[in-house]
Amino acid sequence: MLRYDITTNDWVIFARSRAQRPHELRTPDTPTGRPLARCPFCPGNEDLTPREIDAVRDGSGWAVRVVPNRFPALRIEESLHRDRDGRLFASMGACGAHEVVIESPDHDRFLADQPVEHVERLLATLQRRHLDLMRDKRFQTIMIFKNHGVEAGTSLRHPHWQLIATPVVPHTLRLKYGIATQYFDQFGTCLYCDLLEAELGARERVLDENDAFAAILPWASRYPFEIWIMPKIMESSFGHVPSARMGPLAALLRRVLARLHTGLNDPAFNVTFHSAPRGEEDEEYFLWHVRLIPRLTTPAGFELGSGMWINTVLPEEAAEFLRQVAVS
Amino acid sequence: MLRYDITTNDWVIFARSRAQRPHELRTPDTPTGRPLARCPFCPGNEDLTPREIDAVRDGSGWAVRVVPNRFPALRIEESLHRDRDGRLFASMGACGAHEVVIESPDHDRFLADQPVEHVERLLATLQRRHLDLMRDKRFQTIMIFKNHGVEAGTSLRHPHWQLIATPVVPHTLRLKYGIATQYFDQFGTCLYCDLLEAELGARERVLDENDAFAAILPWASRYPFEIWIMPKIMESSFGHVPSARMGPLAALLRRVLARLHTGLNDPAFNVTFHSAPRGEEDEEYFLWHVRLIPRLTTPAGFELGSGMWINTVLPEEAAEFLRQVAVS
Repeated sequence: MLRYDITTNDWVIFARSRAQRPHELRTPDTPTGRPLARCPFCPGNEDLTPREIDAVRDGSGWAVRVVPNRFPALRIEESLHRDRDGRLFASMGACGAHEVVIESPDHDRFLADQPVEHVERLLATLQRRHLDLMRDKRFQTIMIFKNHGVEAGTSLRHPHWQLIATPVVPHTLRLKYGIATQYFDQFGTCLYCDLLEAELGARERVLDENDAFAAILPWASRYPFEIWIMPKIMESSFGHVPSARMGPLAALLRRVLARLHTGLNDPAFNVTFHSAPRGEEDEEYFLWHVRLIPRLTTPAGFELGSGMWINTVLPEEAAEFLRQVAVS
Repeated sequence: MLRYDITTNDWVIFARSRAQRPHELRTPDTPTGRPLARCPFCPGNEDLTPREIDAVRDGSGWAVRVVPNRFPALRIEESLHRDRDGRLFASMGACGAHEVVIESPDHDRFLADQPVEHVERLLATLQRRHLDLMRDKRFQTIMIFKNHGVEAGTSLRHPHWQLIATPVVPHTLRLKYGIATQYFDQFGTCLYCDLLEAELGARERVLDENDAFAAILPWASRYPFEIWIMPKIMESSFGHVPSARMGPLAALLRRVLARLHTGLNDPAFNVTFHSAPRGEEDEEYFLWHVRLIPRLTTPAGFELGSGMWINTVLPEEAAEFLRQVAVS
């Protein structure tokens, strides 16, 4: 079920299958960390996942594998039906999709330690799933993300990515699209393209780049060492990246991850992909991009209460620090 | 310095004094948890804090003590001066205030284990500081909050609260006030009062109450076991609570904290106080309230990327669970 928060205009997803009963959230007296007897993402254990959706195979077996999430936040079988109890309490079915993309057969290998060709076929798989899910007209946005490390919310160590297709445009994204649309209406250019151009001119917050993509640390970063990877041409959706530019994207993502991993000693982080929503993918107000969010600090009462963030590192200092990390 | 995020309209606070250099955020190879030789909040160590701002004293010394934060996010000495580099990069001085309220002389005592009279004088101290800071016309909102436990972002174990006065209304709060104002314009009533009335009628998500205040678990809770404590009469600011109603507020807060502490085995949590901003404290569209946010789950890539939250426990189930916890 999704419930509408009438005080913020946000939908909240209730996914009860992910924690069976309230008391299971009690803080344990001693950390338990139940290790799994068999990793469901390792080769040979394919029977532990739901039916395979997609896979890249080479001579020795699968190299990338896509399966439904066993504890989905949203499911394609649910309805879009909306309910309303008076003026205050609205809800709808938990319709959507929630898939897992297993990064490689290797249980412990960090993505930056994979050959660039493997990163490229992983990205191509994510794009294939993005495009396929968007064929379902019920889905408004696709969130592609990766959680690395316990502090970033991962529950399974074997490297993997996830896709969640939502039946509504999340309100936070609506606000972002609205701000970029207003900017486009006023100036006739894409806000994100203008930001990238200004950063590439000033070079203070540029971390790395190649012909097709650039990595910058944004001016008003919420998180220390937050990094955006942006295309150097107007492109509103990850679904639009042509195969010829997937190689440069893979190469830059790999190198940025290597800098983060080495420079900060394997920090926990999230990766998220941001694209224009359904119906606006041919407009020119939003530049799709990748965000890397290291989880080095814990948001506390002030941030949760006000929505205003405190960052302890200036992005230009973080950029300088990461630029000095040696990568191949 | 504050920097404006032109993609979201949020101000971000940069507080460099809280982490000296970028490399200090590197993940340590082994957890260090440098214990302090002397707790700066314990009696006898008053020389470790900046000059005292306020205190409640009884026969044996101070019972509640207010000092400036040693690593302030915002400072009264900073200017409100705004800078703008072209159309994209705006900043302003980190003007504001950041105070610490030491809950009691006791290094280890949980607030629910204090006598209700002590909780009451703590709340009266918080209110006194709220009102005093609002006398400075540069400050637009006061965020009162408490962080309990490492997962809630606390760095010092000795129980304490904090106040941060901001020189701008945070955009997230502007949006909330705007939604409540629209509702008031449409229906002529306060959205939050209507929500409370509906909850007190249905009783599904009511946790506890007395004559003056009620504790409910909101319909679209973002966090498992999120609890709101709301006044039963229209009151837009914590600064307006008369002393006769501070006792009932203390009693309910104490009992709700006891339920959370016992029921979930001392979970980490944040407490935040929400009031109308400067200039709107005499309007009737916003009901001030307290929020308790247990930190039982970790927001991951989906939440950070979309702003849409996944909650694993329905608030009515959480309410039922907490109602069954025995408290005095």
